Amino acid sequence: MNRSDSPIYADRVETLIEWMKKQDLNLVLLFDRDNIRYFTGFRLNRVVNSILAISSTDGPTYFVANLDLNRAKRDVWIDRIVPFPEDTPSYLDALRPLFVNGIRCVGLEKDTISLEQAEYLRTLGNGWESIDVRPFTAKMRMIKTDVELDFLRTAANIASDAMEQIRRAILPGMCECQLSSWAEYLMAQAGAEGTSFESFLMSGENSWLPQRFSSRKALVAGEMALLDMGAIVNGYCSDITRTFAVEKVSAEQRRIFEIASEAQQAAIAAVRPGVAAKEVDSAARTIIEDAGLGDFFPHLTGHGVGLSSHEEPIADRGRDTLLEPGMVLTVEPGIYVPGVGAARVEDMVVVTSSGHELLTSASRELMSKKE
Amino acid sequence: MNRSDSPIYADRVETLIEWMKKQDLNLVLLFDRDNIRYFTGFRLNRVVNSILAISSTDGPTYFVANLDLNRAKRDVWIDRIVPFPEDTPSYLDALRPLFVNGIRCVGLEKDTISLEQAEYLRTLGNGWESIDVRPFTAKMRMIKTDVELDFLRTAANIASDAMEQIRRAILPGMCECQLSSWAEYLMAQAGAEGTSFESFLMSGENSWLPQRFSSRKALVAGEMALLDMGAIVNGYCSDITRTFAVEKVSAEQRRIFEIASEAQQAAIAAVRPGVAAKEVDSAARTIIEDAGLGDFFPHLTGHGVGLSSHEEPIADRGRDTLLEPGMVLTVEPGIYVPGVGAARVEDMVVVTSSGHELLTSASRELMSKKE
Repeated sequence: MNRSDSPIYADRVETLIEWMKKQDLNLVLLFDRDNIRYFTGFRLNRVVNSILAISSTDGPTYFVANLDLNRAKRDVWIDRIVPFPEDTPSYLDALRPLFVNGIRCVGLEKDTISLEQAEYLRTLGNGWESIDVRPFTAKMRMIKTDVELDFLRTAANIASDAMEQIRRAILPGMCECQLSSWAEYLMAQAGAEGTSFESFLMSGENSWLPQRFSSRKALVAGEMALLDMGAIVNGYCSDITRTFAVEKVSAEQRRIFEIASEAQQAAIAAVRPGVAAKEVDSAARTIIEDAGLGDFFPHLTGHGVGLSSHEEPIADRGRDTLLEPGMVLTVEPGIYVPGVGAARVEDMVVVTSSGHELLTSASRELMSKKE
Repeated sequence: MNRSDSPIYADRVETLIEWMKKQDLNLVLLFDRDNIRYFTGFRLNRVVNSILAISSTDGPTYFVANLDLNRAKRDVWIDRIVPFPEDTPSYLDALRPLFVNGIRCVGLEKDTISLEQAEYLRTLGNGWESIDVRPFTAKMRMIKTDVELDFLRTAANIASDAMEQIRRAILPGMCECQLSSWAEYLMAQAGAEGTSFESFLMSGENSWLPQRFSSRKALVAGEMALLDMGAIVNGYCSDITRTFAVEKVSAEQRRIFEIASEAQQAAIAAVRPGVAAKEVDSAARTIIEDAGLGDFFPHLTGHGVGLSSHEEPIADRGRDTLLEPGMVLTVEPGIYVPGVGAARVEDMVVVTSSGHELLTSASRELMSKKE
């Protein structure tokens, strides 16, 4: 966040450089804004690019758009900060000096850098190979420090509080986007720097499709409605979902809600050090399958959350990552039944030495109004 | 938006296929959500992927995540809709059948597809070349139809109205993010489906840095504050900036505001068919340079706006695109003077057969309160 935090960021870069040396990797170029924030603390508007170059011998150089130069010089701990012109296809020319000394191998986040950027880099130097640094940076970021957990806890609290306010506000006739935009406003007023993703409330048919964005559809009594949202605090994302029955609920709706809730509780209970991520998934999935609703649970049970709203570890079938203290993940099994409704309760948990701690706290009560 | 609009989308795909045939291009794979919406009308949550494959011989196939299958089948005009599993590195396996018949050349949006996706596609077929389809799709999208202009006009009106409300609300002591999140809320309540980008208000030092996101800094009387925001309507983005003096203004602040305003008016006046985009830029830049402030205008004069908040044409030095009726662009020269403030007035204009029409309408008055 500012230069006084620089030891944290310098240590992270040092960890990356140690790994680079083991890989015989001369240069890493980071384009992903979440990784850049992890190693620099620097926040950028989401439409703005920057590149953090890390040389195994010369350390970091931070390339920023001209418009961000003054702020980067003020706030970033790195000494070498180099500006580039925005809105110009050749802006990556600024990186040319990095390629002069016979670079053999460059580490890139292959899920972030575009083919156009990668092809442009090819023109800056000859005959280098690329390797993917994402697995290593994802692994570094997976274990949260106490400072990171504080930000995540605050982000979770802000989202939980907004969720409670929306619960009390829901009435038939309100439209989905009216409520989800209000939730975002409440989170911003409470201190969020942004939203983890495009918040959405989906009701009735939109819930079981599922639509995954808010429309102008009005809520109708007797529908189920899911609100999924999150706040960002100092870059760290929260993520929470609650399911509401609008004014009244049928027996079938209550049944899918209760099974989804039971599955979620079982998955949360499974979270502790040494457990594989897929076991968290299967704890939820077994309950839903045993209820005969397996075909209506078409997604993962959970995902990691941190500087990105969706990161490692992934709790899904086939995912072998062993949980460790400091990992933070969502637990969110869902059931979507055409003609009936959808039910998903999502919370964030942190793995502790003895098990887990819940980070989100909003009531899980199905009815939108409290009794 | 729904299947009744399918002739519009089918015609666009037909135009693309005609171009593909001229290029001897068998297959185009579109990953960019804005392009996909342009060719299908289909809206997706911003974190969700889909791929539109267009074969020059077999026409379009739309690949969507399992969770979006029901909705895509209901809403998308394309007959072949194929689901893929989300949260799985191998999700692009669904595209394998497209690569069986000796594909020689694949068109990709090279600024959108990631290196990881491109490398995965390489494993699906042997020995094909890629070419960039972005220049062609950008050119198609540059000229807006009347229907698109209606959406842009509505999006511009929503943003203009919210800007007016913020102008009347600004008081010293309010924090930047309080006001920008309120602006976003107002736009959502007025019918926006989202915000064109991360809205921001930057005041005092944050304005001249420029910070380009809202912080928790409180506004102080005598500061200049810039609010930059936009609404999305049916996928189409608006973009507007106003500069406010908080309660009082110095002669120096008023001077940079008046020069920025004069530059903007000159650039808008230059907008008409046949003019090169760089001439719009130079109309503004000359005025700012003649005032001795050229070093404080570190960005472009304007950019196109449509399904993307930042698209062709770009009005900057060296940009030769000739303006044509139906093009929509922003005009937003800015002046950022350390210790004084920043001034930028941004409007959206559409090129008409006789000149231009303004789409944004909020007052350009410097003082935050109307007299």
